[in-house]
Amino acid sequence: MSLVVIGSVGIDTVETPFGRVEDVAGGSAVFFSLAASLFTRVRIAANLGADYPAHPWEALRARGADLGGLRVFEDRPTFRWSGRYQGDMAVAETLRTELNVLAEPPVVPPDFRAAPYVFLANMGADVQLRMLDEFAGATVFADTMNLWIETQPAELREVLSRIHGLILNDGEARMLTGRTNLIEAGEALLAMGPRLAVIKKGEHGALLFAPDQRFALPAFPTSRVVDPTGAGDSFAGGFVGFLASARGDGRGIEDPEDLRRAMAYGTVAASLTVEKFSTLALEDADRAELDRRYDQLREFVRLGAAHAAD
Amino acid sequence: MSLVVIGSVGIDTVETPFGRVEDVAGGSAVFFSLAASLFTRVRIAANLGADYPAHPWEALRARGADLGGLRVFEDRPTFRWSGRYQGDMAVAETLRTELNVLAEPPVVPPDFRAAPYVFLANMGADVQLRMLDEFAGATVFADTMNLWIETQPAELREVLSRIHGLILNDGEARMLTGRTNLIEAGEALLAMGPRLAVIKKGEHGALLFAPDQRFALPAFPTSRVVDPTGAGDSFAGGFVGFLASARGDGRGIEDPEDLRRAMAYGTVAASLTVEKFSTLALEDADRAELDRRYDQLREFVRLGAAHAAD
Repeated sequence: MSLVVIGSVGIDTVETPFGRVEDVAGGSAVFFSLAASLFTRVRIAANLGADYPAHPWEALRARGADLGGLRVFEDRPTFRWSGRYQGDMAVAETLRTELNVLAEPPVVPPDFRAAPYVFLANMGADVQLRMLDEFAGATVFADTMNLWIETQPAELREVLSRIHGLILNDGEARMLTGRTNLIEAGEALLAMGPRLAVIKKGEHGALLFAPDQRFALPAFPTSRVVDPTGAGDSFAGGFVGFLASARGDGRGIEDPEDLRRAMAYGTVAASLTVEKFSTLALEDADRAELDRRYDQLREFVRLGAAHAAD
Repeated sequence: MSLVVIGSVGIDTVETPFGRVEDVAGGSAVFFSLAASLFTRVRIAANLGADYPAHPWEALRARGADLGGLRVFEDRPTFRWSGRYQGDMAVAETLRTELNVLAEPPVVPPDFRAAPYVFLANMGADVQLRMLDEFAGATVFADTMNLWIETQPAELREVLSRIHGLILNDGEARMLTGRTNLIEAGEALLAMGPRLAVIKKGEHGALLFAPDQRFALPAFPTSRVVDPTGAGDSFAGGFVGFLASARGDGRGIEDPEDLRRAMAYGTVAASLTVEKFSTLALEDADRAELDRRYDQLREFVRLGAAHAAD
């Protein structure tokens, strides 16, 4: 089952309490694809300049990804983001962005359009709407951010009414719904249209909302959090990538057990990302490593019945 | 198995986004006892004035609690706390405290001293040390707070070397260990002496650290969070109360499955507390209600094996 991802490719400069890296590989579409490609065939559409490093593409090619939607601008540099994390590293402080090639809309190759699954990473809700037109028959998941919640509320509402699943962080969920309590916020998100809503909470894990289903997972217990950049996109990649692969066995994308598994794979994919700067950990990872962490996570959250005799 | 709790009885004035209550029943020892008394026989030692309402004592008496350690000062008022919660209600802003009868140390009745389990609620580490001398043979759990971490670091270090379990919130764990990452912080707490450490994270749940064991639970998914006051003490009451009751079957207090159950009972006890102001929800609760929520919590966190076939 192939999964199309449309989003940004970026070159990042990041400072955390553990160090500083300059001009390294990043971008929501890249983190997402590296995680999702451990589960399913990924096809990526994104704009970049000739200055973007080759190693993420090599890793993706080795996992069978289709890079036919990468649009390389020879005359303009890649999108750049510079940010800093302090203290508990829960929130990135953006120091600078340069839009560069992201000023151009993404272009989807015609042969991508038959893909059954699509992920629309954080981008303008107006662009997401155009993409929804292009992928009329697909099961679509999307992310968003505070900028679009503030500047394109009507377009974003329409996006929500047309997608299958929304994956966003706790701050965005609160902003979008006006609810502080995250259980209320998740229920309010479902009322806006999507069948599924996932609220990511960084070091505190993630919540899943679906009809008649609520599920929570803590973050994977790693003590080596070096750089949170890309963790949320990696979570989305593990989540959607696993669902796209599981669907193949005919149980349907809303199978409750698969949704829980997808949350766990999203969680362990994110846990790898944060242990190294940039995309390095995800490039080195394989499915066996994710499966080992899945088993550890399962033990970490295992709760028996109330009575020993049960 | 009886469980002695030593801590504060207080009269609270609380403002949250959901309302304001004035001069209502509160205090760490009261919230703890109301939760723990749903599991085991509680014996409470605390100072109060004649102005404290009777209803928490009636609820505790009905559950078989021993109130013989309550020391009522006819000439001085009960300790008073006034606080406000805003936004996500994660942190209380203290507006005013009046020490009143808490200026006197707690007095432990001689017949309490044989209790096998003791909980030392938040109080000066110097007072906790004196209590540890009085309960030399007991399994002791303790809480602390930023004030004592800052003003009595040496005494607190000695407390940590002598107690069985430490139960504190995430901010206190970070402050006490100097570690921002909570997995690192939990490991650092164990290195200070206790066999168990529980880090409470409010709406994000709790983490358990014990030799060769790590366990995480999210908060119970309630959308009716009205007043967080006492949630942490209720968690501790459910946790220690369950462990004290489970020990009766001879499996030992470090039985891994019981520790996980204790975390779940702490979680559901806290979830009751936050749904109403003051001690009202805990007074109305019974064990059957906790067991129902336990089962819901278990379903909320249930994660199957990575492969459907497993």
